[in-house]
Amino acid sequence: MTNQPINIKKIGVLTSGGDAPGMNAAIRAVVRAGFYYKLEVFGIYRGYEGMINNDIRKLENKSIAHVLERGGTFLKSARSEEFKTVEGRQKAYDNLKSHGIDALVVIGGDGSLTGAHLFYKEFGIPAVGLPGTIDNDLFGTDLTIGFDTACNTAIEAIDKIRDTATSHDRLFFVEVMGRDAGFIAINAGIGSAAAAILIPEKKFPVEKLIDRLKFREKAKKESNVVIVAEGGKSGGAQEISEKVKKILPTYDIKVTILGHLQRGGAPSSFDRILASKLGVSAVEGLLQGKYDVMVGIINNKIVFTPIKRAIVDDKQVDEEELRIAGILST
Amino acid sequence: MTNQPINIKKIGVLTSGGDAPGMNAAIRAVVRAGFYYKLEVFGIYRGYEGMINNDIRKLENKSIAHVLERGGTFLKSARSEEFKTVEGRQKAYDNLKSHGIDALVVIGGDGSLTGAHLFYKEFGIPAVGLPGTIDNDLFGTDLTIGFDTACNTAIEAIDKIRDTATSHDRLFFVEVMGRDAGFIAINAGIGSAAAAILIPEKKFPVEKLIDRLKFREKAKKESNVVIVAEGGKSGGAQEISEKVKKILPTYDIKVTILGHLQRGGAPSSFDRILASKLGVSAVEGLLQGKYDVMVGIINNKIVFTPIKRAIVDDKQVDEEELRIAGILST
Amino acid sequence: MTNQPINIKKIGVLTSGGDAPGMNAAIRAVVRAGFYYKLEVFGIYRGYEGMINNDIRKLENKSIAHVLERGGTFLKSARSEEFKTVEGRQKAYDNLKSHGIDALVVIGGDGSLTGAHLFYKEFGIPAVGLPGTIDNDLFGTDLTIGFDTACNTAIEAIDKIRDTATSHDRLFFVEVMGRDAGFIAINAGIGSAAAAILIPEKKFPVEKLIDRLKFREKAKKESNVVIVAEGGKSGGAQEISEKVKKILPTYDIKVTILGHLQRGGAPSSFDRILASKLGVSAVEGLLQGKYDVMVGIINNKIVFTPIKRAIVDDKQVDEEELRIAGILST
Amino acid sequence: MTNQPINIKKIGVLTSGGDAPGMNAAIRAVVRAGFYYKLEVFGIYRGYEGMINNDIRKLENKSIAHVLERGGTFLKSARSEEFKTVEGRQKAYDNLKSHGIDALVVIGGDGSLTGAHLFYKEFGIPAVGLPGTIDNDLFGTDLTIGFDTACNTAIEAIDKIRDTATSHDRLFFVEVMGRDAGFIAINAGIGSAAAAILIPEKKFPVEKLIDRLKFREKAKKESNVVIVAEGGKSGGAQEISEKVKKILPTYDIKVTILGHLQRGGAPSSFDRILASKLGVSAVEGLLQGKYDVMVGIINNKIVFTPIKRAIVDDKQVDEEELRIAGILST
Repeated sequence: MTNQPINIKKIGVLTSGGDAPGMNAAIRAVVRAGFYYKLEVFGIYRGYEGMINNDIRKLENKSIAHVLERGGTFLKSARSEEFKTVEGRQKAYDNLKSHGIDALVVIGGDGSLTGAHLFYKEFGIPAVGLPGTIDNDLFGTDLTIGFDTACNTAIEAIDKIRDTATSHDRLFFVEVMGRDAGFIAINAGIGSAAAAILIPEKKFPVEKLIDRLKFREKAKKESNVVIVAEGGKSGGAQEISEKVKKILPTYDIKVTILGHLQRGGAPSSFDRILASKLGVSAVEGLLQGKYDVMVGIINNKIVFTPIKRAIVDDKQVDEEELRIAGILST
Repeated sequence: MTNQPINIKKIGVLTSGGDAPGMNAAIRAVVRAGFYYKLEVFGIYRGYEGMINNDIRKLENKSIAHVLERGGTFLKSARSEEFKTVEGRQKAYDNLKSHGIDALVVIGGDGSLTGAHLFYKEFGIPAVGLPGTIDNDLFGTDLTIGFDTACNTAIEAIDKIRDTATSHDRLFFVEVMGRDAGFIAINAGIGSAAAAILIPEKKFPVEKLIDRLKFREKAKKESNVVIVAEGGKSGGAQEISEKVKKILPTYDIKVTILGHLQRGGAPSSFDRILASKLGVSAVEGLLQGKYDVMVGIINNKIVFTPIKRAIVDDKQVDEEELRIAGILST
Repeated sequence: MTNQPINIKKIGVLTSGGDAPGMNAAIRAVVRAGFYYKLEVFGIYRGYEGMINNDIRKLENKSIAHVLERGGTFLKSARSEEFKTVEGRQKAYDNLKSHGIDALVVIGGDGSLTGAHLFYKEFGIPAVGLPGTIDNDLFGTDLTIGFDTACNTAIEAIDKIRDTATSHDRLFFVEVMGRDAGFIAINAGIGSAAAAILIPEKKFPVEKLIDRLKFREKAKKESNVVIVAEGGKSGGAQEISEKVKKILPTYDIKVTILGHLQRGGAPSSFDRILASKLGVSAVEGLLQGKYDVMVGIINNKIVFTPIKRAIVDDKQVDEEELRIAGILST
Repeated sequence: MTNQPINIKKIGVLTSGGDAPGMNAAIRAVVRAGFYYKLEVFGIYRGYEGMINNDIRKLENKSIAHVLERGGTFLKSARSEEFKTVEGRQKAYDNLKSHGIDALVVIGGDGSLTGAHLFYKEFGIPAVGLPGTIDNDLFGTDLTIGFDTACNTAIEAIDKIRDTATSHDRLFFVEVMGRDAGFIAINAGIGSAAAAILIPEKKFPVEKLIDRLKFREKAKKESNVVIVAEGGKSGGAQEISEKVKKILPTYDIKVTILGHLQRGGAPSSFDRILASKLGVSAVEGLLQGKYDVMVGIINNKIVFTPIKRAIVDDKQVDEEELRIAGILST
């Protein structure tokens, strides 16, 4: 993982995969740290696509003015089919070399890090990955960049939905993002006083949900919001709501799918700081010979994890949080 | 419309139909104005349902503490089938009389005002209606309570969606509320730099939309957001997106349906003030003998419109706004 | 006011004076409308300073990408002493001519419009002014660009302050912007359930304030927020709070001066639409021969007012709003 | 620290000292957990004042409906001089006993925990403290309840200020809360791309600040925001701004003191979850015999720390964060 450092003078930075709030803050930190250590920094646009198409531009101070607070990624992002081929990667390598780029910082999720790992194996381009995804499903860091903002966006939306749920004594099913991971759902669920939280990792039979709702009816709870992760085992919010409607036909039931608005928006304070720390640490890691790793924060400490492990190992949801959610919703 | 004022000592206030941000601010203003004019004020819970079920409670100063800034309605709202029957209305009348309530303030949309009108015709209970609906589809007021907040909520959500749209060069179809009325769509469309705005009142053929998108592609616009009102003639966002996908299969297309979050949230400054003015004016109208009317603001002036007219006449979308939206999106 | 239109091919746009949310939306609308009517549009940076220093650049589509939703002004703003001299204005004129600029759109407040008026008188450069100021103190338009956003920013801040005021049974004096005009104060006051509103236009003796506070104490109101316009006759928030403290020494009194945060932030839906309409109308006005005017919206209609009148006539606060504020706060 | 658990049937909960967003979420979690474990829960109003004045009421499910998302504390808070006397504490004890309250959960900062500690020593009332303060200056937890929300509030305000700073090429001094602790300042500083961060814990000579500003001027940074903690060694924002103005008289300098708005507002997702976890853990701690302790989260684990240590030991600012802030601001 830590190597005899090569002499790095020019680094490239890219964002890849689904965008996440804080990616711009991370890019900015990489650029600033690069300048601090007298490096040239190149922006590679649209992820690996831009590496293949040579959409690579030198970044200056003004490139990163006023980006810290903006959602999305000004380097843009894309998924690249061509990069999955040897020919594609060869083209990408040639383009990097034509600019004299010695090393990479790759900001993204699973797929993005896999690309960096492959590329290091084949062409020896040192790379440090940054965990940038709202889903928080990466091993090697307590929290990924964008997750905290997505949770805040979700609870702000659910706060609004609860206003109308309470006014009409309604039952709402709110679907949040998280294809294979219930992290947003658990957080949004605890944070919004959900009646129940349905996540991909755990079964939550409809019968149990019905019992919970009936219990709450007796306790005269005024509103019911059930949070459903999009990748839930029991189906999405729409599907589950229909099952419940059949059993509780008198309930006034509505469904809202929060969707892509969870991906955007100005990053939270937490995400700005996380992204800033990881961006600086990525550059410092490269200079210290830390290659083929993802940089994260575990227990408040900067930690470098081999990419191979970060993408293979599963991050588990916190059983303790689920237990507490259960206590709070009854 | 203006009658010889009867001696009013006790008034009832209720919210009915779909809730809207600012309803609480309106209730508060009614209560405060009532106290100012030495009236007793009764809250009728869950709209006409509460009138029939005698869910009627005297309101005090503390009932309205800290409600001004809250979304929803603390008096709750419901649609009442029973109030549509003579028997239901007779029960409601008897309950009002048992409390000695002389007059009503009814906050809601079309259906709510219709109820008040009928009730006045049959039982002679003076009522002033307040236009409370996010849809802005009531004649007799430039803007309804809740509309401005809903527009702000919509553009804040679309701002977030644009972050991710731009990062991925995507085309988004965003569906906003407005069953028969395109007011939110037009405002959200102009306010979010939409590529196109599809509303119930106007045809917007798919071919025209395709042309617009191709034109914008040539002009190298980085992101495309199309706003669709839920009640649009050409179908909802999902349906239209599928038509476009067939013709432009290479576009990366996503759909987001904003849904009920547009109904909630703290009211905007504008809605708080509108609700406050209308609430005070409703009480003063009752005291001046203005019965069976809706109070609104037209050209910055308080205006009382016979409910009959308010619910029959159609409010037209502003052609000038559509023209300007067209200029801005090309 | 309306002249035989000259043949306009190139227009310049600038922002001047204090910035206001929505200025970027206005610039964008001017540029878009310019392109729609086949004009070239030049951005003049830092207001009249840039005209004198020839900091003038042609604007393209990409210049205005993603500016609609941003606070501030990307053309920047400044106050120019040199433009107040004949020599300065001569330089400015020469620079405009060197670019072939035929006409101007000037976005700003009193001072900015005065400059445009003078410039038209001396050099015959047609100009349309746009009312851009959070203070809302311009005659010729119901509302200025930025005012609605500033009111929303103020009430959101005061909502937070009320949380802590209520938790501690405190009396807060909150100072909002508005040097000579109480518009923000009145709106923020009604919108935040203020105990009292102190504005430059009206006397509000300390004795009356003390009476109000004592009355509210008896009525068991849990929190007291007094809104003070910065230019108030009775002094700023700090000064008044000290006077009250002397008379009510047991009150727990705090002061917050909202300050410049009221100037920034993403514009509200209302301001985006207002700015968009006025920006398009300004360009269309120029093409129709409307020179030396400010474009505004009065009673929902686009209205052109001679600049001379717009800057001389006073806009009055709405007595009816003050009356309603009084009823609501007792 | 862990004792043979006594048989607890009734607990009291109070908030004391400066309020913090998330206190309501913490109270709710205590109540819910209490009900889950079949306890009666009593709300003690206005902190120790209410204990002395017997302002103690049984809490029900409806007491905590819709409080999770609200800033402030519905139990209210106060500082109590009388509780510092033996007589006061005796009265408080007698009142607790009259309700049969066996144990306490105390939510607040330093002073509040000190009170609980004393009370346990003298009267043997088991108490668990929860760290509720925006200042984050408590040992025994990585983060205190309210800190994350305060940081988000601060950066949202500073984002707005930066809009106007950039539009006018201005230098802003923004003062954030934190009497003896620079935690908010450091976070807000990194999160808002501050030119410099001045905190109570570190000297930052004016000369160094001047150098930094001149360096940034050369690097053509468009805006400068300097974050100052209120308790800074070099004085508050106003004082420092005046020193800088003397040395850099041509700079356009403004000062904003964010003040009490940092204390209010809906808690962030993070604070809601932190408060929820700590609230449940406090009740479970009491049941397990953990008395005279503060419950916190350190490295993602629930940790009980003797109150005596929590209030005596100092929490240090993170040198690594300061180092990173330095790299990012140059």
